[in-house]
Amino acid sequence: MTSTRATLQQVAERAGVSLASTSRALHGSGASKAMVERVRAAAAELGYSVDAIGRSLRMGKTFQIAFAVADIGNPVYVEMMRGIHEVLAPHGYRVVVMTTGDTAASTADLVRSLSGGFVDGMILIPLRTDDELIEEIRRAPVPMVVIGRALSEHGISSVSVDSGAGIAEAVRHVHALGRRRIGFLNGPLDTTPGASRQRGFDAVVGAEGFSAERVQVEIADDFTVAAGFEAGRRLLAGSSSPSDRLDAVVAANDLLAIGVLRAARELGLATPQDLAVTGMDDTELGQVYLPRLTSVSLGSAERGRTAARLVLELADDPDTPAQQVAFEPELIVRESTVDGGGR
Amino acid sequence: MTSTRATLQQVAERAGVSLASTSRALHGSGASKAMVERVRAAAAELGYSVDAIGRSLRMGKTFQIAFAVADIGNPVYVEMMRGIHEVLAPHGYRVVVMTTGDTAASTADLVRSLSGGFVDGMILIPLRTDDELIEEIRRAPVPMVVIGRALSEHGISSVSVDSGAGIAEAVRHVHALGRRRIGFLNGPLDTTPGASRQRGFDAVVGAEGFSAERVQVEIADDFTVAAGFEAGRRLLAGSSSPSDRLDAVVAANDLLAIGVLRAARELGLATPQDLAVTGMDDTELGQVYLPRLTSVSLGSAERGRTAARLVLELADDPDTPAQQVAFEPELIVRESTVDGGGR
Repeated sequence: MTSTRATLQQVAERAGVSLASTSRALHGSGASKAMVERVRAAAAELGYSVDAIGRSLRMGKTFQIAFAVADIGNPVYVEMMRGIHEVLAPHGYRVVVMTTGDTAASTADLVRSLSGGFVDGMILIPLRTDDELIEEIRRAPVPMVVIGRALSEHGISSVSVDSGAGIAEAVRHVHALGRRRIGFLNGPLDTTPGASRQRGFDAVVGAEGFSAERVQVEIADDFTVAAGFEAGRRLLAGSSSPSDRLDAVVAANDLLAIGVLRAARELGLATPQDLAVTGMDDTELGQVYLPRLTSVSLGSAERGRTAARLVLELADDPDTPAQQVAFEPELIVRESTVDGGGR
Repeated sequence: MTSTRATLQQVAERAGVSLASTSRALHGSGASKAMVERVRAAAAELGYSVDAIGRSLRMGKTFQIAFAVADIGNPVYVEMMRGIHEVLAPHGYRVVVMTTGDTAASTADLVRSLSGGFVDGMILIPLRTDDELIEEIRRAPVPMVVIGRALSEHGISSVSVDSGAGIAEAVRHVHALGRRRIGFLNGPLDTTPGASRQRGFDAVVGAEGFSAERVQVEIADDFTVAAGFEAGRRLLAGSSSPSDRLDAVVAANDLLAIGVLRAARELGLATPQDLAVTGMDDTELGQVYLPRLTSVSLGSAERGRTAARLVLELADDPDTPAQQVAFEPELIVRESTVDGGGR
C-alpha cells in the first residue's frame, strides 16, 4: 500500500471513519455494507490505487501484527508498543500483544502456532533463544522481526542494541562520581539480556585504569521489582560498617533498580548520598519514581518503530532480504545518582 | 473440556510438553506429527475424553481469548491479565491483548473486526460505551464478556465493581484522619470509570454528617501519571497560605495519584503530613512507590479470573445465559495517608 499515491490515512479522513474501519472496508471483512460503499467512494475520489485494494484482497490480509514479549508487565514493552503502533496505525494495522513465556520452548510453541489467518507478521522479543526457536522463526508462516539478539546470519531480520555497552557506561558514570564499592544486580545469565549485560559489566571492571575497593555481582530470579528487592537485600546486607558497604548499584533494568531502591530504604540508606543506583531501559516508571532514576536508554520506542518498518516491508514483499539494525545505548542522569540531578 | 475426566494439564504433564503444544496437538494445528502422536498417546493413556478432542476439532477452536483494553500501559490491566491467564492456561488457552482506543467507535470497530478464526472469545473493557458499541457486542461472532459497566439487561455477561463506593470509602478515610480540605482528582467524566467515580464522590460529600472546610474537584485529561501531574499542579496551586491549601487528595486511580505525589513534591509538600493522597486499583506500581500508596482495591486479578471463567463457559456453550458478577471495593491503607502506615 505504500506504493499508492493516496495513503490509507487520507482515505480514512476523506471517508470520515477510523483507519481500522477503512482498512477493513477495503479488505472486505468485518465492515458493514454501508461502510464499504462509503470508504470505497472516498478511495475512488482520491484515486487510491485499486491495485492496492485488489492486492490486499488477494493477499487476504488480517491487518494485524503480533508483538510477542515474555513479561507484559514490564513498562519497557509499553514504550516499544507505542513506537510500533505509531508506525503501523497509518497503514491500518492493529497491534496484537502476546506472551512468549520464559523459555525458548514456549516461545517456539507460540511461533509454531502462528498462521497467516491470524496475523500478517510478528515482532518477537525472545527472553531465551535456542536452535529450535531459531529454526521455528525461520520456518514461520508469516514475516518475523526479532528485537534483541542480532540474527541476520540466520536470515532473520533483527533490531539489536548493545546493552552490555550501556551497563559499562553506567559503571563508568558511578565510578566518575567517586564510587568505589560497586555492585551489579543482573537477571538470569541464561537470558539474552542477562548474558550481554554481564559481558558488559565484566569488560568494564576488567578494563585498564578501572580501580575499585570492591566489586560484587548478584543475580536476581527474574527482571521484576520483587526479584530486585530480594536480590537487593542480599547485595546490601552483611556489610555492617559504612566503610565497606556498597556505595553504588548498577541494575540490569529499571524494575530491578526500583527493587534495590526499596531494599536500600528498608536499611535506612539515603539515595544518592549513601547509595547511587542506576537502571536500564529508561522507562516512564523510572522517570516518575522518587528519586527519579538514572537509567540507560536503549531507545525502546525507536527500536519498536524500526521493527514495525521492517515487518511492514516484509509483509509487502516477503522476499525482502533480512536486515539488521543496531542501536547505541545512552545514559540519562537523574536523582538516583546525582543529588537534584536531571529532570 | 471441563467435562472430561482428565484435564488438559494432566495430558500435558504426561506427554511432558507445554499446555500450548498439547492443546494444539489435540486441536490438530501448528504441531509437528511427532508432537501430535506423543500428546494423543498421553491423552489415550489418561482416558482424556475423545469427545472433547472431537468437539474441539469440530469447533475449530483457536485456543486464543482476546483481552481488549484502552491503555495497555496501565498496570491494573497487567494484574487483570495475570488473573485471566491463571484461569485460561490450564485449559490450553492463550491470552491475546488488543487495544480498543479511547472512543466507543474505535471499540466498536475492534469488536466488528472479530471473527471466529481469530479468537474463541473476548474479554472487553470499554473506556466509553454507546448504543452502537452495545449492539456490536451483542452481535459479536464470538462470546463476549465485559469488565466495567453491568450490561446483563442487554443480555451481555459482565463483571462489575462499584468504584464510586470505593471513592466514597477513600474520602471517609481521609476525613476520619481529620482532613477537612479535600480535593478529588478524576479522569474524564464521559468515561465509564470517570462517571461512576464522580457519582461516588458527590454522594459522600453531600451525605449527612460530612463536614469540610473546602471541597475541590479537578478533571485530568486522561487516567495517566502525566495528566495527574498537570491536574495535580492545578489542584495544589493558588493556595498561598497553608491554612487554606488542600490537605488531602483522593485520586480516581493510582496513576493519577502518583501524578499528584509528584506535583506535591515540586511544591515541597510532605506526604502524608502536609498532604494525604489516595489512589484506586491497588496496582503493583502503587505498592512499590515511595511513599507506598493508600489505594482502593477493585479486585483486579479476581475480576480477571471471573471474566475468564465466564468466557470459558460461553466458549463451551454459547447458549449459556448472560451472567453479571459484582465485586466490592476495599481500601488498603499505606504510607501516603498514614505515616509509617501499612506495608
